[in-house]
Amino acid sequence: MHLDVLFLPRELDARPRPQRVAVVIDVIRATTTIVTAFRQGARSVSPVASVEEAHRARGSTPSALLAGERGGKRLPGFDLGNSPREFTPDAVRGRDVILTTSNGTKTLRAVQERRSVAIGALLNRAAVGRWLLGRGEDAFIVCSGYEGIFSLEDAVCAGAVVDALAAGGPSVVLGDGARASQVLWARYATDLPGLLRGTGWGRHIVEIGLGSDLDMCAQLDVTDVVPVMADGRITLAGC
Amino acid sequence: MHLDVLFLPRELDARPRPQRVAVVIDVIRATTTIVTAFRQGARSVSPVASVEEAHRARGSTPSALLAGERGGKRLPGFDLGNSPREFTPDAVRGRDVILTTSNGTKTLRAVQERRSVAIGALLNRAAVGRWLLGRGEDAFIVCSGYEGIFSLEDAVCAGAVVDALAAGGPSVVLGDGARASQVLWARYATDLPGLLRGTGWGRHIVEIGLGSDLDMCAQLDVTDVVPVMADGRITLAGC
Repeated sequence: MHLDVLFLPRELDARPRPQRVAVVIDVIRATTTIVTAFRQGARSVSPVASVEEAHRARGSTPSALLAGERGGKRLPGFDLGNSPREFTPDAVRGRDVILTTSNGTKTLRAVQERRSVAIGALLNRAAVGRWLLGRGEDAFIVCSGYEGIFSLEDAVCAGAVVDALAAGGPSVVLGDGARASQVLWARYATDLPGLLRGTGWGRHIVEIGLGSDLDMCAQLDVTDVVPVMADGRITLAGC
Repeated sequence: MHLDVLFLPRELDARPRPQRVAVVIDVIRATTTIVTAFRQGARSVSPVASVEEAHRARGSTPSALLAGERGGKRLPGFDLGNSPREFTPDAVRGRDVILTTSNGTKTLRAVQERRSVAIGALLNRAAVGRWLLGRGEDAFIVCSGYEGIFSLEDAVCAGAVVDALAAGGPSVVLGDGARASQVLWARYATDLPGLLRGTGWGRHIVEIGLGSDLDMCAQLDVTDVVPVMADGRITLAGC
């Protein structure tokens, strides 16, 4: 089993074998929020790339919740932003959610032609590692970055997943990106809240008054939920 | 002074401020070879993207040497490959060199609209650090990668330059990529030959029988040569 980490979604274009298992990571905050939504009982999350697309999707599913942000802030007229703290059981249990974010949902759309796409965050990293081992196939972990730029917290989270998997045995062969991410994980594993407050995107989230989101994003291995995307829709089915 | 590391040339597209100082790195082997060429007395190196372009450039400068590779191997009819061992004083002193390689020369072409572009390798990393400090401006270090994919040895070399610069004082502010590269440098600094033989592209170079090139690529701080690119041509002028 070959495992690699792509630090930016654009690296997908250079990969010769498109049909593989993939994990998408956007720690601050899209994938943390999606994992939280399912942890609190949401029925589905449909990631869309644009605000217009979100409104169209709600037009055809009026019972769905509209959620998302631009520049980190909740969009006007939306039911929820992209803060995992807003995704409470009262807000999302049994609901379908349409989600658009600056980076994470775009990455999910870019990756969705892969066979199986799991949603990874620090919250569920051990469970994602087990999910990957269970697939037993060559796999990518794709970091969202922020607006096309490398994002340290996503790379560290990818390394956390690699570390969980590499513990699974010597049969896992790591590419250069996976090896680098493991080194980053070893460096930052003991101070995840500090890491998240110090990265480029994390500092922006603090500046706009959402710093307490980062404490949720920094929690490690607190849930076994592994949301999986198929045909543009994320559910827990098939896990 | 803000300093960041781009792990792939494509990340340039996402950067809002194009007019900055830049360093290009392709440890295995283009930038190691270019630094070696100047160390051995070459007059200029003109990086070109394609084999056709190389032949056209020689058409207008018949005295120039043709150098380059595809898949790591010397191109048919070329005077030199891309092995730093071939760039001896006898071969290159006083000569103009036209160079085309799989990754590094393409990166140089992609970056060349930046104001000042220096050629960095492990061989000259301390000198490149001093050159950057001397500019005193915001700067990027751009890793070539291999065929659009993250390359660990370039990231480690970038971290080596960042480390040399960060020692220059607290006035250097590091982006996420620069911080990550520093962590990678700290991990691999004590075993550069082992690092180079273990990365994806390094293993390929060993497989095609050019492993001894890697020992040259792994040498740290052995020259103060800092080649600089302007108008598509690399020289030592302006250092």
